[in-house]
Amino acid sequence: MVLTVTLNAALDITYRTPALVPHGSHHVTEVSERPGGKGLNVARVLAALGHETVVTGFAGGRTGDVVRELLDGGTGTGGGTGDGTGTGPGAVFKPPVDALVPIAGSTRRTIAVVDAASGDTTQLNEPGPTISAAEWAAFLTSYDRLLGDAEAVALCGSLPPGIHVGAYGELIRRARAAGVTVLLDTSGEPLRRGIGARPDLVKPNADELAQLTGAREPLRAARDARRRGAHAVVASLGPDGVLAATPEGTWQASPPAPARGNPTGAGDSAVAGLLSALVEGLPWPDRLTRAVALSAATVLAPTAGEFDACAYEDLLARVAVTEHLPA
Amino acid sequence: MVLTVTLNAALDITYRTPALVPHGSHHVTEVSERPGGKGLNVARVLAALGHETVVTGFAGGRTGDVVRELLDGGTGTGGGTGDGTGTGPGAVFKPPVDALVPIAGSTRRTIAVVDAASGDTTQLNEPGPTISAAEWAAFLTSYDRLLGDAEAVALCGSLPPGIHVGAYGELIRRARAAGVTVLLDTSGEPLRRGIGARPDLVKPNADELAQLTGAREPLRAARDARRRGAHAVVASLGPDGVLAATPEGTWQASPPAPARGNPTGAGDSAVAGLLSALVEGLPWPDRLTRAVALSAATVLAPTAGEFDACAYEDLLARVAVTEHLPA
Repeated sequence: MVLTVTLNAALDITYRTPALVPHGSHHVTEVSERPGGKGLNVARVLAALGHETVVTGFAGGRTGDVVRELLDGGTGTGGGTGDGTGTGPGAVFKPPVDALVPIAGSTRRTIAVVDAASGDTTQLNEPGPTISAAEWAAFLTSYDRLLGDAEAVALCGSLPPGIHVGAYGELIRRARAAGVTVLLDTSGEPLRRGIGARPDLVKPNADELAQLTGAREPLRAARDARRRGAHAVVASLGPDGVLAATPEGTWQASPPAPARGNPTGAGDSAVAGLLSALVEGLPWPDRLTRAVALSAATVLAPTAGEFDACAYEDLLARVAVTEHLPA
Repeated sequence: MVLTVTLNAALDITYRTPALVPHGSHHVTEVSERPGGKGLNVARVLAALGHETVVTGFAGGRTGDVVRELLDGGTGTGGGTGDGTGTGPGAVFKPPVDALVPIAGSTRRTIAVVDAASGDTTQLNEPGPTISAAEWAAFLTSYDRLLGDAEAVALCGSLPPGIHVGAYGELIRRARAAGVTVLLDTSGEPLRRGIGARPDLVKPNADELAQLTGAREPLRAARDARRRGAHAVVASLGPDGVLAATPEGTWQASPPAPARGNPTGAGDSAVAGLLSALVEGLPWPDRLTRAVALSAATVLAPTAGEFDACAYEDLLARVAVTEHLPA
């Protein structure tokens, strides 16, 4: 199975309103809720691709209860909007297994207020709950046990209050000691500290990579990140696709055209694409193709964070992968 | 006891952010939650004044669970910010008794986003859950039983989807049949239809009264509302106090100076003041004094919807009541 870790899980709430006016009063016309936090998004896409997945991290309070309920039963519509024919994920969907560790604090909410007219989104993110030392210790015990059954693990997103900034380094070292392939998708100091523990793969976007290395040119920055400890770096270039610097070579993969739509969750879908191809033993160009096709199919889907299964199948044949040969 | 009815109860969530920018992303620095909906606010203030109160209406889903939990235990800080000495409410506080009727739908949330710099508030209100015919029937059965123990009942706020627009008329007729004094605090068509059922008291603000009667001049509008069926009308004039048109006479009550602060909940505190004085058998000038003092003490309190107990005691002696003699 594939394990995803979301230390700062969330309940993602989306509100539709006619238009957001500061200091005004608004009737919300539509409310939707889904489990949120990068690792939960990655797991949902992996599950939709037919992979056995387990999610861990923390959940607490009434909001944590809602997240767990939605994970368990409410994800049936969460993984693709195709018609279930052909090679679509419909036939094999099995929701991620919930191995979230309970905490005394309450899971945070995020609220996306979508203007009905423009489709533009205003985001309000609650602070995460503070994790106690005992809760972190309980998590580590559970994590070590889960690693015993995992082919790969994805460590995703921000760290909640109470978790030390070197936490991802610790989780990477434990995964490597257990012989489990480990992917890190975070930013800032947690990324910098995590890379030092030598993860198999990091997936920053161009801004995160520039912040980490000081280099704005993505290829140079990706190579710098490898020197800092990451075995492979896949940098997301937004609508232009991805750039990969790996021990086997350097590639760029691009969609046939930049996808227009809602980019929410596109990066998480790319992580799911990379991981799924990796555990299936596919070579780098196929991993990147899958990442780019899933990412673009997520931007194209009408619902934020889901992917259009038909568009995904179609895009798989149309992603262009170019190898950068050493100068 | 005093019964308050909140058919469209809510969980009121307050977020503090540096400043709300449409289409931006915001870290919420502070989150607070309290039971919301006018009738629950009225009950909290009545309880703080030492009155036995029972709340009914509807609650459902996880959000309904949170509302009930907060009503039960979390209201200890909800009723006044004084030091508990003298005649303050501290010594006698007993939280409202929860007689909310369970529903299949989920209680709505309201979100108030407060700009830390300006204190200005942006309001997002979810739609209420749809109430089924069976749920409404269950409510009526419970309501009739509760009326048996009630000295007065306050019918407060908007109607959720599924409830017919004449619902307040029905609740007023049942209260009158049971010999229970009934106050109506709503607006628009539910107010118009409710007044026809001859409630003892309505408490519109000047805008609601003008909308109902077509008359912009408050005294004329209040007298018109009496002709439409209300035995007494107390019109809230915002920072200028209240105007009362009653069978015993017509009065205006004003605070010593317009209170500056957050007016959220000031109207609900006025209702609590009127009701508490009414069940204590006090004459109209004392009822109005209490309404104005509580309302101003709510505006002055640092937390939205609470009242400053010391300011309340101080204001009681300083509200000016003037009788309008017939011309």
